[in-house]
Amino acid sequence: MTSTQQTTTGGSSAAGSEFDRGIALERRAEGEYDGHLDGAWSIGAGINGGMLLAAAGNALRHTFADEAHPDPISVSAYYLSAAKDGPARFATEVVRRGRSMSTGTVTISQHDGGAQVERVRALATYGDLTALPDEVRTTATAPELPPLEQCLGSDLAPPEFKKNAPLLNRFDLRLDPATAGWAIGKPSGRGLIQGWLRLADGREPDPISLLLALDALPPVTFDLGLPGWAPTLELTAHIRAVPAPGWLRVVHATRNFAGGLLEEDAEVWDSTGRLVAQSRQLARAPRG
Amino acid sequence: MTSTQQTTTGGSSAAGSEFDRGIALERRAEGEYDGHLDGAWSIGAGINGGMLLAAAGNALRHTFADEAHPDPISVSAYYLSAAKDGPARFATEVVRRGRSMSTGTVTISQHDGGAQVERVRALATYGDLTALPDEVRTTATAPELPPLEQCLGSDLAPPEFKKNAPLLNRFDLRLDPATAGWAIGKPSGRGLIQGWLRLADGREPDPISLLLALDALPPVTFDLGLPGWAPTLELTAHIRAVPAPGWLRVVHATRNFAGGLLEEDAEVWDSTGRLVAQSRQLARAPRG
Repeated sequence: MTSTQQTTTGGSSAAGSEFDRGIALERRAEGEYDGHLDGAWSIGAGINGGMLLAAAGNALRHTFADEAHPDPISVSAYYLSAAKDGPARFATEVVRRGRSMSTGTVTISQHDGGAQVERVRALATYGDLTALPDEVRTTATAPELPPLEQCLGSDLAPPEFKKNAPLLNRFDLRLDPATAGWAIGKPSGRGLIQGWLRLADGREPDPISLLLALDALPPVTFDLGLPGWAPTLELTAHIRAVPAPGWLRVVHATRNFAGGLLEEDAEVWDSTGRLVAQSRQLARAPRG
Repeated sequence: MTSTQQTTTGGSSAAGSEFDRGIALERRAEGEYDGHLDGAWSIGAGINGGMLLAAAGNALRHTFADEAHPDPISVSAYYLSAAKDGPARFATEVVRRGRSMSTGTVTISQHDGGAQVERVRALATYGDLTALPDEVRTTATAPELPPLEQCLGSDLAPPEFKKNAPLLNRFDLRLDPATAGWAIGKPSGRGLIQGWLRLADGREPDPISLLLALDALPPVTFDLGLPGWAPTLELTAHIRAVPAPGWLRVVHATRNFAGGLLEEDAEVWDSTGRLVAQSRQLARAPRG
């Protein structure tokens, strides 16, 4: 990175996709980048948390690319205030440069009410996913989903959710009907939602877009009969392999809804059946 | 906090316990504390990651106590180098002060090889667990463990693990025999270890000691037939309620051992059957 105005994206051959435009950065100075958060990725009160995670992850990708550690391995994001459509600053700090992995922080902030307000603070470790050993002893099994044509589009989301959800148009999301009873007023109460996912414009997945995929499905609280908004306090993503091209299978589940908070776990499986990403988030329970 | 030399501990009535001595801090300046990492809490190559998490959590507890946010809600720790017996510095930074929760960072560093070397960097959100709503809709169920007297003490750990594990003496740990086959050369291959846990000196659990409990059991890789050391890269803890006095039930499990890394999930249940803490960590797989 030598130019101070070079536009940089997460996908080498996919600069034309709306995802890559959404996370594009211009370098201002060492570790500092300008971006633009696009309202097309908003849902509810602000920009989707997965998109913020991907944008933050893209900034660290550039910071660590010089050490041959371009891939997110673990990213922990704390959401501080709702991000809006408009310019944003990304500031990264290198905490530790290691041989096989490096650790750093990234902050997303926006000008708001006369001050620069922090939206997200994240701490992350980067490495080279292609340099990891090949052995796979995963005991988890991929979700069994009905064929794509038997799954349901995201247009079935509750009206309360859809009315301010341009994000839904960024995905081609096909939900397993067995986990979508909430769409017809019959939530299962299990706290489980799963389905097929890809970007609407066909842009293939990569380690940075997996950060988005981990927070792309409707909140599992829909399946608990709570149609409202569940703002994320914290989300930690583990990216475990470079995903193969094709549809992703995504599972969201919660085990512990209590005290006005819930944990939500996500798994992303690629088209070869590899568990390529996992996340856990802590969110505020919807009211009502 | 007005005295610059006041010794501060995590438990109000438990200052005499070895856990409270282990996490005790002296305030140097605003947000800066001196501590001493005691080799009595070490295992393998360094101080136990759960003890470092508790010590870091105690520093932030003091930083946020003034805003009435004394309890860890979510703590994400990145482990940068092995911590040794000896003095350590704790530096906290407030990222955001909120009404119901506040977010900050904490760094643990030690003098090593002529320089101050960072051991742990953590990002965390604190609040007041006693102020959360009472509703509990947890769908997870507590592990069914045999009675204490039918469980197995930690003296059954593999010799390779025990030879440098003073940590084992800090706990009274009783493992479910159904998940301890690895002790007699018969790992189940499921990647599951569970048991009863309390501090050896009887010190009752609180939100800070739960940070330790989340990383107190042997690595689940024992149950995959891998007796070596599995160093943590990242661990995120969610503390969900103030634990009741008495024995804790702890479950460690992995779902995704691949590419030389594994995720390890922990749950801590208190004596009333409440799921009081959850964590997920990403660790390096043991060699061999």
